[in-house]
Amino acid sequence: MPQTSSTNRRFVLAERPAGMPTASTFRLETVDIPKPAEGQMLLRTLWLSLDPYMRIRLNEGYSYRPGVDLGGAMVGGTISRVEESRHPGYKAGDLVIAASGWQDYALSDGSDIDIKLDPSMAHPSWGLGVLGMPGFTAWHGLVNIGEPKAGETFVIAAATGAVGQIAGQLAKARGLRAVGIAGGADKCRYAVQELGFDACVDHRSADLPGDLKKACPDGIDIYFENVGGAVFDAVLPLFNLHSRMAICGLIAHYNGGGESGDRMPLLLTSLLKRLKTQGFIIYDHYAEHYEAFFREMSGLLAQGRIKVREDVIDTLEGAPQGLVSLLEGRNFGKVVVKVA
Amino acid sequence: MPQTSSTNRRFVLAERPAGMPTASTFRLETVDIPKPAEGQMLLRTLWLSLDPYMRIRLNEGYSYRPGVDLGGAMVGGTISRVEESRHPGYKAGDLVIAASGWQDYALSDGSDIDIKLDPSMAHPSWGLGVLGMPGFTAWHGLVNIGEPKAGETFVIAAATGAVGQIAGQLAKARGLRAVGIAGGADKCRYAVQELGFDACVDHRSADLPGDLKKACPDGIDIYFENVGGAVFDAVLPLFNLHSRMAICGLIAHYNGGGESGDRMPLLLTSLLKRLKTQGFIIYDHYAEHYEAFFREMSGLLAQGRIKVREDVIDTLEGAPQGLVSLLEGRNFGKVVVKVA
Repeated sequence: MPQTSSTNRRFVLAERPAGMPTASTFRLETVDIPKPAEGQMLLRTLWLSLDPYMRIRLNEGYSYRPGVDLGGAMVGGTISRVEESRHPGYKAGDLVIAASGWQDYALSDGSDIDIKLDPSMAHPSWGLGVLGMPGFTAWHGLVNIGEPKAGETFVIAAATGAVGQIAGQLAKARGLRAVGIAGGADKCRYAVQELGFDACVDHRSADLPGDLKKACPDGIDIYFENVGGAVFDAVLPLFNLHSRMAICGLIAHYNGGGESGDRMPLLLTSLLKRLKTQGFIIYDHYAEHYEAFFREMSGLLAQGRIKVREDVIDTLEGAPQGLVSLLEGRNFGKVVVKVA
Repeated sequence: MPQTSSTNRRFVLAERPAGMPTASTFRLETVDIPKPAEGQMLLRTLWLSLDPYMRIRLNEGYSYRPGVDLGGAMVGGTISRVEESRHPGYKAGDLVIAASGWQDYALSDGSDIDIKLDPSMAHPSWGLGVLGMPGFTAWHGLVNIGEPKAGETFVIAAATGAVGQIAGQLAKARGLRAVGIAGGADKCRYAVQELGFDACVDHRSADLPGDLKKACPDGIDIYFENVGGAVFDAVLPLFNLHSRMAICGLIAHYNGGGESGDRMPLLLTSLLKRLKTQGFIIYDHYAEHYEAFFREMSGLLAQGRIKVREDVIDTLEGAPQGLVSLLEGRNFGKVVVKVA
């Protein structure tokens, strides 16, 4: 069932999952296309982004934002085209990075729009990856929290994912040693041969701590935490004096799961190694930094200095399974859903 | 056996303790007073500081500094008078904050001296507390890591201890709500009535988390971590958005002890609350900040705006038991040993 100009397909949250989302977590509905009031516009979804944070939003209650309501449309970043505008700042045909969620059409008053894109851009979906939230996350965590210095060692897990692939290439562009962690030989090969990582360690290895130590002969200066779990256990002993950890995600724990190791080694490492850790949610930083990021990243892309790999899902109907695959680490590159 | 001008009493590390130090951890020796070579001076210890970090230095191997050698003199900060100088920067009679350790006399080439004090100062021992390492620790953790803003809530444990008493008063001077945690009703009463804390919670309470929550109706913006253990468990749920934690000590764990709680809640809090944590060892910051601190604190003391409470041990022989009492939380105020 493709997108049409007469009905709006949307996924709503049917029930809250315990652990991994299942076939009954989301429900596909077909409803009328809404009409924009004065000050609003109608957005048509071209691309939908799938991201790990979505799992958190399926839970009840406030985490860093309120959870999605039962029966409510599932949230998500989109590349959208303005179909009809009653908003003074936008006109029909504008291409924007928006937050329309898992649906064909949505109303917007402009407050959910990050930026206008060039309507003729070759790869609009990049606005959900390298030029959007994940790219901005990579840039902010590396640059503003990591405070990178040439020659330092930077480590990131999910190295070929939406954030990892950009963070690693940015680290290389700034003269750091970039070490990735990824699931499987294919991803590791891609990280090193295509993305330019200095090394990449397979987290399925029988000896992840030993492999990571070998890949980081001078220890770790900056760790970008987006996973948690066993990866963190391997990282912790390798922190150097005055190292930094940017915490942007804990995907290993989003589906629940219990103990993850004792707290004491982390606190003691913080003290003795003078480790700085900083959790961040990238939405806090758009006002201050997004335009600087977008300018820098657009420039790097124009110069061909950043490679982009996407994992494309061809239909909106594929979104639920796509999210599960992402949470299981079965994606290879930034996951985007081609809606229109 | 008092200090004399003919022999040097000193405590050496006799055996490494497993857990709390015991009567056989240290051994008192009497040796000759050393002679300064060119470029050196002979220091006579007037006051010796006892501090929690000393427990770490009893362990073998490197922590943030190497452990004390078996048979070596026990380390420690001192207020010392120059007895004889062959160093161009110092003359006999100078009063200095030094690091002579647990002994009557020591040689120095000046590299262990933090600062010269006014030889006529009324309370030389304050150079080991409010004007020395603990005061500087309080100031740096609150000011440079905590980034305090008037109206925020600041929490510190060991509130009447060497660091806590200064940090709390500094926080009040900057317009924060200061909440202390201390062991017992006497210390809590002192923290509130004498030091000016807004509230103080007894960590021996049957419901520390509940009591702390009541004392922090607006949550916690800055936590000064010097304890760990159950205190940290009570603090963690109360962190506000964009809160900060300065980690300067973990006294609850210095004698060993096992699990301290799962790591995951700390990482998740870091992420969702955008918590910043920063471990620090104050020795890193003397070159950059100590003089600014000393000037500010001297001024506050001159204005009578900072109260100081010391817990004085009258003889060098009392140092080993004094350290045990400190690690057990039985001191009341900054612990100093009157050596001369």
